[in-house]
Amino acid sequence: MSMQGYLRHIERLNHWSPGNFKSLFFQGQRIGRLKQPVWKALGQWSDAFRQDDEGLHLQGHYDSFEARTGLFAEITSTLVDEGVISHIHGEQYPVTHAGRETAIATMDRASAPYFGLRAYGQHLNGFVRHGEVLKLWIARRSADRRNFPGCLDNMVAGGLPYNISLAENLRKECMEEANVPPSLANRAISVGVLTYCTETAVGLKPDTLYCYDLELPGDFLPHNSDGEVAEFMLLPVDEVARLVAKSDEFKLNCNLVVIDFLVRHGIINPETPGYLDLVQGLHENI
Amino acid sequence: MSMQGYLRHIERLNHWSPGNFKSLFFQGQRIGRLKQPVWKALGQWSDAFRQDDEGLHLQGHYDSFEARTGLFAEITSTLVDEGVISHIHGEQYPVTHAGRETAIATMDRASAPYFGLRAYGQHLNGFVRHGEVLKLWIARRSADRRNFPGCLDNMVAGGLPYNISLAENLRKECMEEANVPPSLANRAISVGVLTYCTETAVGLKPDTLYCYDLELPGDFLPHNSDGEVAEFMLLPVDEVARLVAKSDEFKLNCNLVVIDFLVRHGIINPETPGYLDLVQGLHENI
Repeated sequence: MSMQGYLRHIERLNHWSPGNFKSLFFQGQRIGRLKQPVWKALGQWSDAFRQDDEGLHLQGHYDSFEARTGLFAEITSTLVDEGVISHIHGEQYPVTHAGRETAIATMDRASAPYFGLRAYGQHLNGFVRHGEVLKLWIARRSADRRNFPGCLDNMVAGGLPYNISLAENLRKECMEEANVPPSLANRAISVGVLTYCTETAVGLKPDTLYCYDLELPGDFLPHNSDGEVAEFMLLPVDEVARLVAKSDEFKLNCNLVVIDFLVRHGIINPETPGYLDLVQGLHENI
Repeated sequence: MSMQGYLRHIERLNHWSPGNFKSLFFQGQRIGRLKQPVWKALGQWSDAFRQDDEGLHLQGHYDSFEARTGLFAEITSTLVDEGVISHIHGEQYPVTHAGRETAIATMDRASAPYFGLRAYGQHLNGFVRHGEVLKLWIARRSADRRNFPGCLDNMVAGGLPYNISLAENLRKECMEEANVPPSLANRAISVGVLTYCTETAVGLKPDTLYCYDLELPGDFLPHNSDGEVAEFMLLPVDEVARLVAKSDEFKLNCNLVVIDFLVRHGIINPETPGYLDLVQGLHENI
């Protein structure tokens, strides 16, 4: 199995040119990055943002979480009207310089890449042990999905809105996507967090994937109820490794979640050429 | 438990000033970094190294692994005589721009920090399951150790010489340090690799820790035979977490191995403040 095969997924998800962006700061800490159409449009709110060589600085008289969230709601609504931002998604994402818990405001999910906000998701590896052999439950996405229709996916995966706890959101996604009851979902073990950063036409997507392992009973059968999944397959771990290394069947960021699983379970290991680049590449720090 | 407690170990192990070093290249790839006394001393081998603004370039007429290894042996021996390097350790380490498998030569272990060579070690978490509770076997280092006497340590840990496979070295360390027989050591699972980089008085230590988990039978008792360990203790994982967060009892880099174990087993998890910095901090990429 070619190592190149694993690394190309990390390379595809990690490319951006700092020169294309201005930074957005609050109290000296970077909370986002903006492409030219967005930072130009923010000139309308000259009371809210000071511009200098470093970037744009959200002013301190927006002195509460609510005041800042209100400002961003006004901005995103106006920018949708002006055609700068495509649409309002209706789900709030945190605006933060680090983790979710240090958020200084929230902003609509669809605006996150326009502001270069860090996004957060949860991905769960559902697996079964057959003696020494591991098998992974892999989902195939429905053909009608807007993103990556028909592609392979982790058993459970979803974006993480601001106003819900990680445990609650994971239970919700487990039930909706794979009919995993809460009693079973609660046995999922947090195993790490992966990060990558991709430049898009409209902005930047620094993404954060909280990963979980859930060992399932041999007789458990996942069943989808929210229309996101066409089918589930129970595949030997070597077959999943081959699909990641040799094909583009997986939704792009799900490859990273599988690679991390393979690293933690010793299938990808130090004897694998390029191991160091691969493990470091799962944790890119922008 | 303060997150600050975990992060301080990562901060202590990751500090260096690039301005204090010149890079050492071979075929355009950086294989090391040198402080002033060493790069000045290399001026004696003007046939071997070209110097420019970028750094020192090992010349292509050293066109084989053996020729380059011979050159480094001559250099380190001379520099020990001249008092630039402290001593010869007698164990060969790889000279490489990436992983062990891309080595272009070897050099004596004691010279590695003087040349800023990446070093490699293996650390093993020996643990026992008592129902839902994990317990870790923790070693206390002998009082006569040169480094970190009396400190806590992972159950098995050791440096990785060049001319031995990872599997073989792990079996050897398991037997010498904790009397783990090969049949049991072979059940250790490779779970990842940690990296950090520390500046010292004489040079730079970019270090690479290959990590393993080994679940042990409840009746297994580790026993040391090489004099490195004074005693072994079986501690509940929460107690080990507390020792890492609140004390400096562990040998410095062993804290990182425990933190990674706590992350992979969900004891340190996304609800822990600073989680993202902590997980990324285990994988610093210089």
